[in-house]
Amino acid sequence: MCAILTAFATSPDRGRALARDFRVRWALEEAGQPYDVRLLTFTELKAPDHRNLNPFGQIPTWQDGDLHLFESGAIVLHIGLRYPGLLPDDEAGRARAIAWTFAAIDTVEPPIWDWDLARMFERDKPWHAERQPMLESRIRQRLSELATWLGGSDWLEREFSVGDLMMVTVLRRLHGSELLEEHPSLVAYVSRGEARPAFGRAFAAQKAVFDRATASA
Amino acid sequence: MCAILTAFATSPDRGRALARDFRVRWALEEAGQPYDVRLLTFTELKAPDHRNLNPFGQIPTWQDGDLHLFESGAIVLHIGLRYPGLLPDDEAGRARAIAWTFAAIDTVEPPIWDWDLARMFERDKPWHAERQPMLESRIRQRLSELATWLGGSDWLEREFSVGDLMMVTVLRRLHGSELLEEHPSLVAYVSRGEARPAFGRAFAAQKAVFDRATASA
Repeated sequence: MCAILTAFATSPDRGRALARDFRVRWALEEAGQPYDVRLLTFTELKAPDHRNLNPFGQIPTWQDGDLHLFESGAIVLHIGLRYPGLLPDDEAGRARAIAWTFAAIDTVEPPIWDWDLARMFERDKPWHAERQPMLESRIRQRLSELATWLGGSDWLEREFSVGDLMMVTVLRRLHGSELLEEHPSLVAYVSRGEARPAFGRAFAAQKAVFDRATASA
Repeated sequence: MCAILTAFATSPDRGRALARDFRVRWALEEAGQPYDVRLLTFTELKAPDHRNLNPFGQIPTWQDGDLHLFESGAIVLHIGLRYPGLLPDDEAGRARAIAWTFAAIDTVEPPIWDWDLARMFERDKPWHAERQPMLESRIRQRLSELATWLGGSDWLEREFSVGDLMMVTVLRRLHGSELLEEHPSLVAYVSRGEARPAFGRAFAAQKAVFDRATASA
């Protein structure tokens, strides 16, 4: 039996592969591993059955036999540790790739997420416009530091790894914003990730879920 | 030669062990590994030498021979994978502990951090008071979910792991706030972490740095 990934039945990202199940789909495609998907409504996400899999009522979760996991970063790392293709073979290279995984979600993503939260939930508030420069400057700082590190390299370290996979998914949340476009090298970095065949297969799989949901609505 | 950890020369946490080097100190004490500390001023943090170790100019970093790491979560996980005492021996148990490491920094910490950022940088803004209920409700949701999962258990899974180490350090940021005190089981969970001898040794080590800095100031 295939391992089972959970995802939104109707993703708020409208098929743009911004939901966190996408990171796992992409990792599984890089590793060449098959998987099944269980789609959940927002009601099902908050129900006790799903909270047994994820105490915080979120997607994605991962069931592989007796192993139940949650948190996209942890699932991607588990896949990377288990199958070839996502982590270097040597201990030092592996540790560096894991460092970039944490940098993506703990250093680069938080200001991007805060900016997105403000757009989603505080757009009508009187302070929204006044807080924007502060929110944007936090993102600019991290992007500038990231671009300096990347320089002219293809990937964050010598080879593509889980660290790049996570970082590209984090940066994709800025697609179409001038914040990302201020750094052509980061735009090219994201495009390089998106051009990987595994990314394409994973993207098509999540897009098909959205298209079916839209067609049946 | 000992591995080298970087930390703030004068930590803004005033010796309360809230800076992120503390997570690494605690993990090293659990693993029984010696280490040296290099203290950095805020100017040194942003200088090119340190950015070679951490492109984002943050502490902690970790140098062990040729291996250079950054991101507290990655360093703690590296120590957990390398030495006994912080991760279960079996693959499934290890993956669960890693899932809680990510849950701590990717699901529980962000709303706590946002609330702290608002206290630090937006306290004088006209919107600060009006945003508080929203900021607090995000924290309350995560704490309630965490308390439900923990129930009457000592730790998040069967044994203490890197997941608990990270979660306790995240929750300690709420020390003295009623948000944490609304959940006696979480207060007890934090106390259980703080009562570990390794925590005590790590706490004393970072406190000594602060006390020396204060005495010489």
